[in-house]
Amino acid sequence: MRKAFEVTVLGTSSATPTKYRHPSAHYVRLEGSYLLFDCGEGAQRQLSRYGLRTQRISHIFITHLHGDHYFGLPGLITSMALFGRTEPLIIVGPPSLKSIIYVLLTESDSVLPYELIFQSTQTDFVETVVETDQFSVVSVPLKHRVPCTGFMIHEKGPERRLNVDACVHYRVPMEQFDSIKMGADFISSKLGVVSNELLTTPGYKNRTYAYITDTIFDPDYLVPLLNGVELLYHEATFLHERAARAAETHHSTALQAAQVAKMAGVGRLMIGHFSARYNEAEPLLVEAKTVFEDTVEAVEGQTFVVGQTAV
Amino acid sequence: MRKAFEVTVLGTSSATPTKYRHPSAHYVRLEGSYLLFDCGEGAQRQLSRYGLRTQRISHIFITHLHGDHYFGLPGLITSMALFGRTEPLIIVGPPSLKSIIYVLLTESDSVLPYELIFQSTQTDFVETVVETDQFSVVSVPLKHRVPCTGFMIHEKGPERRLNVDACVHYRVPMEQFDSIKMGADFISSKLGVVSNELLTTPGYKNRTYAYITDTIFDPDYLVPLLNGVELLYHEATFLHERAARAAETHHSTALQAAQVAKMAGVGRLMIGHFSARYNEAEPLLVEAKTVFEDTVEAVEGQTFVVGQTAV
Repeated sequence: MRKAFEVTVLGTSSATPTKYRHPSAHYVRLEGSYLLFDCGEGAQRQLSRYGLRTQRISHIFITHLHGDHYFGLPGLITSMALFGRTEPLIIVGPPSLKSIIYVLLTESDSVLPYELIFQSTQTDFVETVVETDQFSVVSVPLKHRVPCTGFMIHEKGPERRLNVDACVHYRVPMEQFDSIKMGADFISSKLGVVSNELLTTPGYKNRTYAYITDTIFDPDYLVPLLNGVELLYHEATFLHERAARAAETHHSTALQAAQVAKMAGVGRLMIGHFSARYNEAEPLLVEAKTVFEDTVEAVEGQTFVVGQTAV
Repeated sequence: MRKAFEVTVLGTSSATPTKYRHPSAHYVRLEGSYLLFDCGEGAQRQLSRYGLRTQRISHIFITHLHGDHYFGLPGLITSMALFGRTEPLIIVGPPSLKSIIYVLLTESDSVLPYELIFQSTQTDFVETVVETDQFSVVSVPLKHRVPCTGFMIHEKGPERRLNVDACVHYRVPMEQFDSIKMGADFISSKLGVVSNELLTTPGYKNRTYAYITDTIFDPDYLVPLLNGVELLYHEATFLHERAARAAETHHSTALQAAQVAKMAGVGRLMIGHFSARYNEAEPLLVEAKTVFEDTVEAVEGQTFVVGQTAV
């Protein structure tokens, strides 16, 4: 069975919560790993409301220090402590985040029962910030009003499936099965090199989820990076009739998000980070679909499978 | 008509939000003045959810720097800016609060379109921290794990009503009506001192709302201060079966809150700040009522009139 790789949306508003929306936060489940991207005010309550596994979150990624992307982080950190967390928590974000969190913890006289590990992002170049057996995460500097990075989460694992009959036929020792699955050829003492294609069948392609917020419309830079991504979340703060306002505030319109998606040939586009002026996201969705048909609206509490498309 | 003086509860949980509860925040409306006491995470969204007048809040009082009492403040401050506030906002709380807020504003590169005025509380003595024509607010040092003050809001205004017929009879000039209402005697050139009682009838007594959280059970100190208060909000984190845990964490039980209310002879007791272990507050309410009958449960979104009692 294909590995789980899915995104649950916890917040869809920009700048400020509204009666109907929470600020940014995306919960990602990747086959036994749980990650959080941004942590707007109320994220901890959203996690609990949707029955998600808060204590299993191993990494939290913060794009930038506008409040709607991290004012929920101090509360989440202290609640994890109150509920007895002992596993370390890795926080990846702008350099000042560490001192901010430590000041808040010091003032509340809090000693956490678990280790907080901070890892700083920078905005000079694209960089791998986390690498595990299951996935890697790359930070992508974005053009916004303050230092900001998006993130791309790459699934890792075998892209080929073992053809067990063929392996028996060529007498491949079992201890080599893992490397064969990862694409290695087999060196037989009798036959020489046995090509990987003879020992495996095509499997699933490793998928990528890109979390791109907040950013000005920036296709020349973003399109090559996002090329072929299975699921792209791209902010769409405004309708295109407000393109000037979007540029001024270093945000994007729904149309621009769709243009990036189309040029990059992504599998599916998810739009969110809607301005409080839009009670309904429907017009933003309609606008994006005029350019890129497989666009979905980020809806709080909904889960999107990475790699699933309308077709 | 009697002046409006009412409290709307925005949060009822202690330490951490739950699926059903938000952390501490009480919104007070006092005839044209709007005040906020504590500002736990999500308070700004609760204000909007219950249709309250966020931009009209002139003062925010923070009891102490445990996150469940102020992690919603940075978001509220920035949202007020986004919605175009220009009126100054006075924040009363522990001394470090100012630097915390300024660090967060600096990191987000925010320039507020309104003035933030910080006023520090101290924990050495009871002190008047705000004084206006309409009300005064007194800070009350509490015994908790970190520096903490409760607050008492005293209504101000005439306690007597003018007896217009009597004033005409004694030829009181109209420009003296205000001071007569406040209790002054009238000096007549013919009759000498005309006692205030001859010129007025009994009016409404000025009321007090006391916001007492977080505190260890401390009746010797608190009872004289809270004597006769119309509405007392007293934290009740635990049932009395956990009195030892309450003492250890510097909190109170429902029974203890009721004991303080009874000894102080308050009009009505409101309990809140419930531990996450209690999904239902009913047992805490029942326990408090065994000692003090006119106890109500703080319920999010409910408004309580100061001075209203069960009788």
